[in-house]
Amino acid sequence: METRIFTGFMKHPSDFSELDAAISRGEIDPFRIVAILGKTEGNGGRNDFSRDLAVEKSRQVLATHLQQDPAVIEDRVLLSFSGGTEGVTTPHYRVFETRGTFPSAPLYESRLAIGRGRTRQFLPEEVGTMTMVEETAQTIRRILEQARIDPHDVHFVHVKGAIPYEWPPKSPRNSMAYSRGASALGVALALGEVNQHDLNDDMILQDYALYSRCASTSSKPGLSYSDIMVLGNSPWWNGNLVITHTVMQDILDAQSVISLFESFGISSSQLYKEAIAQRIHGVFAKAEADPRQSVRGYRHTMLSDDDIDDTRYARCVVSSILAAITGTPAVYVSTRAEHHGPLGGGPVAVILSIS
Amino acid sequence: METRIFTGFMKHPSDFSELDAAISRGEIDPFRIVAILGKTEGNGGRNDFSRDLAVEKSRQVLATHLQQDPAVIEDRVLLSFSGGTEGVTTPHYRVFETRGTFPSAPLYESRLAIGRGRTRQFLPEEVGTMTMVEETAQTIRRILEQARIDPHDVHFVHVKGAIPYEWPPKSPRNSMAYSRGASALGVALALGEVNQHDLNDDMILQDYALYSRCASTSSKPGLSYSDIMVLGNSPWWNGNLVITHTVMQDILDAQSVISLFESFGISSSQLYKEAIAQRIHGVFAKAEADPRQSVRGYRHTMLSDDDIDDTRYARCVVSSILAAITGTPAVYVSTRAEHHGPLGGGPVAVILSIS
Amino acid sequence: METRIFTGFMKHPSDFSELDAAISRGEIDPFRIVAILGKTEGNGGRNDFSRDLAVEKSRQVLATHLQQDPAVIEDRVLLSFSGGTEGVTTPHYRVFETRGTFPSAPLYESRLAIGRGRTRQFLPEEVGTMTMVEETAQTIRRILEQARIDPHDVHFVHVKGAIPYEWPPKSPRNSMAYSRGASALGVALALGEVNQHDLNDDMILQDYALYSRCASTSSKPGLSYSDIMVLGNSPWWNGNLVITHTVMQDILDAQSVISLFESFGISSSQLYKEAIAQRIHGVFAKAEADPRQSVRGYRHTMLSDDDIDDTRYARCVVSSILAAITGTPAVYVSTRAEHHGPLGGGPVAVILSIS
Amino acid sequence: METRIFTGFMKHPSDFSELDAAISRGEIDPFRIVAILGKTEGNGGRNDFSRDLAVEKSRQVLATHLQQDPAVIEDRVLLSFSGGTEGVTTPHYRVFETRGTFPSAPLYESRLAIGRGRTRQFLPEEVGTMTMVEETAQTIRRILEQARIDPHDVHFVHVKGAIPYEWPPKSPRNSMAYSRGASALGVALALGEVNQHDLNDDMILQDYALYSRCASTSSKPGLSYSDIMVLGNSPWWNGNLVITHTVMQDILDAQSVISLFESFGISSSQLYKEAIAQRIHGVFAKAEADPRQSVRGYRHTMLSDDDIDDTRYARCVVSSILAAITGTPAVYVSTRAEHHGPLGGGPVAVILSIS
Repeated sequence: METRIFTGFMKHPSDFSELDAAISRGEIDPFRIVAILGKTEGNGGRNDFSRDLAVEKSRQVLATHLQQDPAVIEDRVLLSFSGGTEGVTTPHYRVFETRGTFPSAPLYESRLAIGRGRTRQFLPEEVGTMTMVEETAQTIRRILEQARIDPHDVHFVHVKGAIPYEWPPKSPRNSMAYSRGASALGVALALGEVNQHDLNDDMILQDYALYSRCASTSSKPGLSYSDIMVLGNSPWWNGNLVITHTVMQDILDAQSVISLFESFGISSSQLYKEAIAQRIHGVFAKAEADPRQSVRGYRHTMLSDDDIDDTRYARCVVSSILAAITGTPAVYVSTRAEHHGPLGGGPVAVILSIS
Repeated sequence: METRIFTGFMKHPSDFSELDAAISRGEIDPFRIVAILGKTEGNGGRNDFSRDLAVEKSRQVLATHLQQDPAVIEDRVLLSFSGGTEGVTTPHYRVFETRGTFPSAPLYESRLAIGRGRTRQFLPEEVGTMTMVEETAQTIRRILEQARIDPHDVHFVHVKGAIPYEWPPKSPRNSMAYSRGASALGVALALGEVNQHDLNDDMILQDYALYSRCASTSSKPGLSYSDIMVLGNSPWWNGNLVITHTVMQDILDAQSVISLFESFGISSSQLYKEAIAQRIHGVFAKAEADPRQSVRGYRHTMLSDDDIDDTRYARCVVSSILAAITGTPAVYVSTRAEHHGPLGGGPVAVILSIS
Repeated sequence: METRIFTGFMKHPSDFSELDAAISRGEIDPFRIVAILGKTEGNGGRNDFSRDLAVEKSRQVLATHLQQDPAVIEDRVLLSFSGGTEGVTTPHYRVFETRGTFPSAPLYESRLAIGRGRTRQFLPEEVGTMTMVEETAQTIRRILEQARIDPHDVHFVHVKGAIPYEWPPKSPRNSMAYSRGASALGVALALGEVNQHDLNDDMILQDYALYSRCASTSSKPGLSYSDIMVLGNSPWWNGNLVITHTVMQDILDAQSVISLFESFGISSSQLYKEAIAQRIHGVFAKAEADPRQSVRGYRHTMLSDDDIDDTRYARCVVSSILAAITGTPAVYVSTRAEHHGPLGGGPVAVILSIS
Repeated sequence: METRIFTGFMKHPSDFSELDAAISRGEIDPFRIVAILGKTEGNGGRNDFSRDLAVEKSRQVLATHLQQDPAVIEDRVLLSFSGGTEGVTTPHYRVFETRGTFPSAPLYESRLAIGRGRTRQFLPEEVGTMTMVEETAQTIRRILEQARIDPHDVHFVHVKGAIPYEWPPKSPRNSMAYSRGASALGVALALGEVNQHDLNDDMILQDYALYSRCASTSSKPGLSYSDIMVLGNSPWWNGNLVITHTVMQDILDAQSVISLFESFGISSSQLYKEAIAQRIHGVFAKAEADPRQSVRGYRHTMLSDDDIDDTRYARCVVSSILAAITGTPAVYVSTRAEHHGPLGGGPVAVILSIS
């Protein structure tokens, strides 16, 4: 079994012509598409309609090729578009596709493996509680088993998290922050990044010393279940890609990212060259404007600027640094990083081709 | 003769308490201050009042210590505050001060040298023309002579350029862009970066293949003369600081900046460490959102975002990259870079302590 | 023949549930829909994707009911969504529908009449020139004839104007401003608001003393023809609605709007009452931040604010005033008003029910 | 005793040339200035430096004429600059000055009266509690007594409220919202707008059915006492000015404002004419984007727009309506209106000349 990644670029949030053409010419088998993760050029906030447009159009393209109703496409394909292409970030999407079947025995080397699954439906009052944490963890364990990925070889868990509709709103934890935070802790629990006994309802969104190094969670108002995609390496998978990850300790921590490449035999002087950019098939990161309003002792103004939202700044900073290191601005940086890495920092996952 | 640099941090655009204290305790001799360059937290645009506040307050502090009328302070000290501390950039200022006198003979090694001067007053119709270019160049030559800096050892020329008041407005070139562009070409001419015969009125703001690698120009409506500060290295100066510069070929060109440090014996692995940040006493750069709307073939959205001005994005991108490389967010990045480096790129000057 | 207007409100730019339900219950005959004009909640600028989403969704709803391909819907229905619901403006749309047929003879009273048509395709170099002005006027005359509206009874002409695709861009007038301006002058010419001999290529976007009092033009990059909708009163039409218009002389000119209601026997004291809001079925206006940077001698800051685009302010000001006068925030205010009313002012059209 | 008002317009937040000239020519007696209230062109938020600049410069102008240290000017003059001149609002200030002395007996008619005073210093933990409410009320009573204004003749109470510095921050109520709310309730208590027994710590920022119809409160971090100015009518005062007030029931309630003028014998048809604008010497209002996200049943987008702060919209809407009604954009509209008028509405005070 192999994971392939097709990268498409958008002239507009509704432009999926490259995906369409790739399917038409046989480069992508639409029936094997697992997920599409992309960055669209809206503001990433509540009035960001670029994401809706992207989901609408990508769904139409897939529906045409799959000869299915657009309404059921998201049952088979996880569509996750994150708004905000500040600075150099180029609007783009990565299409994750599988090919082949599992070998009869594990191979000598591990390659990029992908799994997807859904939690059960949540009740509004369950969001942001240990119930959500545990169901998320349980779902991830199930995904890992099906995809034959060992928890220690997981490098990226993307959760499109639940915020079930509730009117009138009664559950104080049925919010975006609580949903994201609980999902992240669910990831941490499933991967052994935290201990079960350290988790309880009270520490959620309180004890930020407990976090995941692999999570990338968002939350979608109206979604009653969480949709999860896992990326890791597994000897049951072949192909040309591998994934790795690190954690930026703060928003300027380029060193951690450079070290990650060095562990692949790519020295810092080799970085920045075109040849390396060509080998990169995914960069996913979480960014956060340090709530303590400083970075390395220096005051920052991201949280005191009433003209521009801090999430736009945080994405801009991290995407600039990652684009400069990798040589490609096709980076997926999202914000709001509760329980994702330490305060002010965040996880970074990178998918590389082996050669 | 020695150039010293004191770095102060601002809790607010009106906060010059660190400068005040430094003068009071004798760390700075107010009579030897040549210039103060700082970054304040406004939007860098027309309605940025953080700069006015900073000029007002720094002037008051100096006036008190110099026992002079605030109104005449700028005759002796160049006050240049650039707005826009997007992303991680920390609001700060660098105070340039001289100490001692020239030695009787040049020393073996060159150290940071500083000079300052003013052009004559310009007529509105002279702005943005070869007249301005040549007067700017002439003034710079005069500054270099007084400061004993060889043109080839210049690394940074900061021009607070003229846009004389004219009502009703009649001179089409009496604008911010033309003023900046002509000033930059004046720098290029004085330093031998361009040939006299390649310059004429028509190529100003037209032929961007001609540019300076050291210029940092701005323009101030109402100013009738240009105020110029030059930084370079000279064997007639001693002290602990040196300056160097490079040009980012595009907005992601971290490699050029890293190479600049390597030429000082600081390897890329040494960068990012605290010890290096401590040695940095100035980082000055020009940033620009590539007007061709792409970077390395990838579309960027900085010029199509009607919610946020492209200058804010450009400063954010470059300052993030420079702060990540140097380990310090005390970077001075400004925008609008006509004839400063190639299209989409810009000069970067760095001041380091020798050890 | 009768013109009916259905007003729908949007919870989101993709929400056309009210339209859908109205068609389903037979309140609207989808085959008789002529146009849908709406205000969506984007920023009204280049990166406003709320409009695309609205067009996409409204087209789908119509396609379903008409059993046609969404791609051909705009041949039969003019879909025009304007972005920017600043301040109190509520996201909404007005569906214009006809019913019945023309009577054998004109009636005693005139009622709201509607017509629609398209210009021929324009070449890029024709945009913004007299060619476009004349073809626009000719098309309007044809529409008036078919709809049996006398030019003097026209009160609102909505033009979704052409900006044909051209690569590389060579025609300097193939721009949004020129397209809007030429369309507006075409309206003025057709309605006898200006004389043919006063028009020529040079005065377009130059002589703002010549303008239309009824135009509402926009331009859509990529559209090669102009799509035009005309509203007026005609004795060949019956029903319950009439339309009228006025011109705000400047952005604060509420008096002109109040006078317009007084001419309908609605005194200013009756205004602001709920009963009047119920009788209003359309308010369409153009707004502009006076380029002279003042209103009635008082300086305004709409054009010097680098954080917020002046179009957002202009729409907010005019929509607030119109909403306060009419008692309803379902107002359609758009900006960029070249040759629409005097500098700093703009036309306002109001559709009322007779009782 | 007479209250005079001088209105100055600003070309820039630091422009107090009109005040300077008025004092120089004797039109204003600087020793009789009580307060200056103005609107400056910043964003009204945390990074609004236009206010600091205005305070700085106005203080300098006064210090020069009073021959005093700028640092003590605010002991004698209340300087209150509110940021945000969205839409048509023109940057301006009103200088309140007294002349003469009290008559030996009250006159037949009441005229504009002004009073000023300060609360004692508050402890951080007192802010936002009944202690603050009562001390505020007590101070107002004292002011009324000195100024000889009956509580029922008060129409506008401006409070620059306390938020004493506390580090580390421990008092949860030592915040801007609590300070504003408690100040407003203090006004309501002093004027008899609410009953003592209805007030307690718990209802502050909770029970919005209790509010003042005359309050205009703000809060200034770092200020340890509240600075209060009261405007009303009193028979002990003569001159040409009177003040009145009303409450906009919602953000579109122009009717209440028009009725206020009608009570002065100015019909709605007389409004909008220049002659009326000349008689207006002050318009002060509080604006608020209805937190229920709708106005008269129509959804508004002011609170879901992540590009522009709702306060900027709210000020724009109300100032546009008031400017359209009065014919002058010299209106002072501020936001955040806890316990000021009903939810979504706010008080409006108007100062008129008698003829």
